[in-house]
Amino acid sequence: MTDPFVVVGGDAAGLSAASKCKREDPDREVLVFEKGAWVSYAHCGMPYYVKGEIESLADLLSLTPDEVRERDIDLRREHEVVAVDTDRQTVAVEGPDGRFEQSYGDLLVATGAHATTDPIDGFELSGAFTMHSMDATAALRAFLTPPDEPVRGADVEYVDAARVAAYADREPPESAAIVGGGYVGVEMAEAFSAHGLDVHLFQRPERLVPPFGEAVGEVVAEELRDRGVTLHLSTEVERLEGEETVEAVRAGGETVETDTAVVGIGVRPNTALLDGAPVECGDSGAVVVDEYGETTVDGVYAAGDCSESRHVVTGESDWVPLGLTANREGRAVGATVAGAPSRVGGIAGTAVVKAFDQECGRSGLLDHERARAAGFDPVSETVTAGSRSGYYPGNAETRVTLCADRESGRLLGGSIVGTDRAAVRIDTVATALEAGLTVAELERTDLAYAPPFSPVWDPVLVAAKVLAGEV
Amino acid sequence: MTDPFVVVGGDAAGLSAASKCKREDPDREVLVFEKGAWVSYAHCGMPYYVKGEIESLADLLSLTPDEVRERDIDLRREHEVVAVDTDRQTVAVEGPDGRFEQSYGDLLVATGAHATTDPIDGFELSGAFTMHSMDATAALRAFLTPPDEPVRGADVEYVDAARVAAYADREPPESAAIVGGGYVGVEMAEAFSAHGLDVHLFQRPERLVPPFGEAVGEVVAEELRDRGVTLHLSTEVERLEGEETVEAVRAGGETVETDTAVVGIGVRPNTALLDGAPVECGDSGAVVVDEYGETTVDGVYAAGDCSESRHVVTGESDWVPLGLTANREGRAVGATVAGAPSRVGGIAGTAVVKAFDQECGRSGLLDHERARAAGFDPVSETVTAGSRSGYYPGNAETRVTLCADRESGRLLGGSIVGTDRAAVRIDTVATALEAGLTVAELERTDLAYAPPFSPVWDPVLVAAKVLAGEV
Repeated sequence: MTDPFVVVGGDAAGLSAASKCKREDPDREVLVFEKGAWVSYAHCGMPYYVKGEIESLADLLSLTPDEVRERDIDLRREHEVVAVDTDRQTVAVEGPDGRFEQSYGDLLVATGAHATTDPIDGFELSGAFTMHSMDATAALRAFLTPPDEPVRGADVEYVDAARVAAYADREPPESAAIVGGGYVGVEMAEAFSAHGLDVHLFQRPERLVPPFGEAVGEVVAEELRDRGVTLHLSTEVERLEGEETVEAVRAGGETVETDTAVVGIGVRPNTALLDGAPVECGDSGAVVVDEYGETTVDGVYAAGDCSESRHVVTGESDWVPLGLTANREGRAVGATVAGAPSRVGGIAGTAVVKAFDQECGRSGLLDHERARAAGFDPVSETVTAGSRSGYYPGNAETRVTLCADRESGRLLGGSIVGTDRAAVRIDTVATALEAGLTVAELERTDLAYAPPFSPVWDPVLVAAKVLAGEV
Repeated sequence: MTDPFVVVGGDAAGLSAASKCKREDPDREVLVFEKGAWVSYAHCGMPYYVKGEIESLADLLSLTPDEVRERDIDLRREHEVVAVDTDRQTVAVEGPDGRFEQSYGDLLVATGAHATTDPIDGFELSGAFTMHSMDATAALRAFLTPPDEPVRGADVEYVDAARVAAYADREPPESAAIVGGGYVGVEMAEAFSAHGLDVHLFQRPERLVPPFGEAVGEVVAEELRDRGVTLHLSTEVERLEGEETVEAVRAGGETVETDTAVVGIGVRPNTALLDGAPVECGDSGAVVVDEYGETTVDGVYAAGDCSESRHVVTGESDWVPLGLTANREGRAVGATVAGAPSRVGGIAGTAVVKAFDQECGRSGLLDHERARAAGFDPVSETVTAGSRSGYYPGNAETRVTLCADRESGRLLGGSIVGTDRAAVRIDTVATALEAGLTVAELERTDLAYAPPFSPVWDPVLVAAKVLAGEV
């Protein structure tokens, strides 16, 4: 009998793989080890639970442990895989009952990533959070809840109830510091503002959401300022200060008092379990895989935030940890392991983020330095166009940036920002990148037009038209 | 000196061509003959002016006659081109001062289309309208305005003021019949309902908006019924009845009383001026052109609603008269005539329409019979998926249909319907069709995900995932 398909990590990639494998090959034994108590939860929804827009932490669970087991998947929570022996095809597992070895036929490493906090001294203080765990999210929502009110929606059976209770007893913060102006920072600015806090956001680069480029960064900064968020750009946070709890942020030679702090300065892949295993990792620290998600060791796969992917524009292995990629890669590996070889697909680094009322999207290469490093001669144009016919109510300014290779005319990337249906329009760019379209081809694409939804020339077409004049 | 660039028709295609030619080659003489008084107006906005959502008829003008002349274009309104002599390179023009000949170096036929009414007896009655002219639109809005109120926004200098005044004096209709359940019919149902009229919609086929396919048609029918519109499907209208004004609709053996009627049962290309000229027309009656918009006669171009275009899926010449195509083709012909050969691009028949709160989109081939005629072996799937993460407020059911060729897996077409940002998502399908992607490639495309805008798997990806299992 074949040894089991062992999956390390019970989140998007891991459980997509386990579920798909079981569906395709019901007889295959599938074992999932998850280090923590939580499985299959929506990271991207956490800021909205903190904000209060989502009622319950349970809403963020795609699958409960019971639902996973109903799929005949052997799920072991609180089990950490600490080492992999690829010669003997075993993993070493530390669980509630001690350490043991588990043999595998196929292995999927789907260990995700963790939030970086180490450059920030003082993160161990109470009142400091990352938005990367359900327990931290529950605790922060409890902190924001006045002591005389119940904490809403934190009653998941395996939540860290002691931590929630401790924060629920405290007076809610009146001010919040956010360290980092990426997705998490921008989303948390909205979340804290919704609770009426005085919000300070610290960002080391000069722009917010740097992967979205200059045009989007400017609009987001303006939007946050308009909503009363104090921005400290080009400002490096040295440390969080306080006795036991966060009381201030020390940044750029200044001290700003605060009652709580969220650190969102990036994530790193979780690959410690592979130390010593002959599995190749890239410069990012994430695992290198082939088009089927297989690592440099036969029968060992990696998917999700701990693995690299092929970038559809550069063709190179790249690391962009995002939700859809994790789900898709996991699913493909599950099918492959079950005997139906499936490609994991490439990435374009497509991302969207909401900054209060501004919808922001990006895909592909926008940064000229990066584009040049990949062998292109980049040229970009930014246009401002309407989201609907100019005469139709609700028409809103939409800024689109497109970047192309000057010689071939090939589209390299794009970004968009605006208040009216801007985010989903980035999918046009993402699809064009997947297909390798030139800007001229994109300009000639038959996109939709009707006054309530789009002007005759969709904002993406307007940008393509302008850029096509230069390539 | 080169003979002038003569453009027949002063709407989207004609004025795009004239403007682009002048911009690229300012010394070229450009002459535009327009049969009527109106130039460069937004057909697609008319129902929303009637509805009252757009305040003024002037808002629907992209360019006024003065603005056209400021571009140094010699615009002659009330001048009808009645014949073309391609040997002598002249057109015969009938203007206010009689008939004359005009020689041309290059000629663009951009005469558009006209609304069909002839199968409906009684259309000559007062109170019957098509939504294909600005004067009719102004008259209908006047009709809907109580006699003691001023008619808003109809004060464009060259409007048919007598017709507006005549309707303004009449008691507003309390009921309306719509003949035809395509775009115009659905949009006019919304417009009449906004004025509180009792609305009856008659549709000969069994479904509304047939080019959008079954899944969309069902949702639109349900939406219209929910909004109080009485649908008469599979019902052919024989005639409008009345003494001088419309009093009833005779359809399917029944007589339904009504105070006004709008006929929107299709359009036909305006090509009468080419009778006798050796310019090839297709089965549609529209002019056949090459990839630069040139007809079978050198130096004679056609663009917009009077010409066919290359369908990006079938590769064949096809007739889908829509706004973006007219603008794009006109612009390309203008550039070509000015010495910068530019392709007019293909069409995918991408269209979007608003049916009250339902946003509908379609692109490519959906009809299996048509797909088979084009040499494909079509297979379709329809899915219902969320527009946002399930836990995020505002998530709405979105139905996506995708059609692909069974053997090659190539995407052939798609449709979408839903209340939350559904329409613009059809652009993903349109872009995939332009690029010739397979369903498997579409499934692997890195589309955007963030809880407020899209679930992890965008509805289009969900459909691609399901359909990819069958090709």
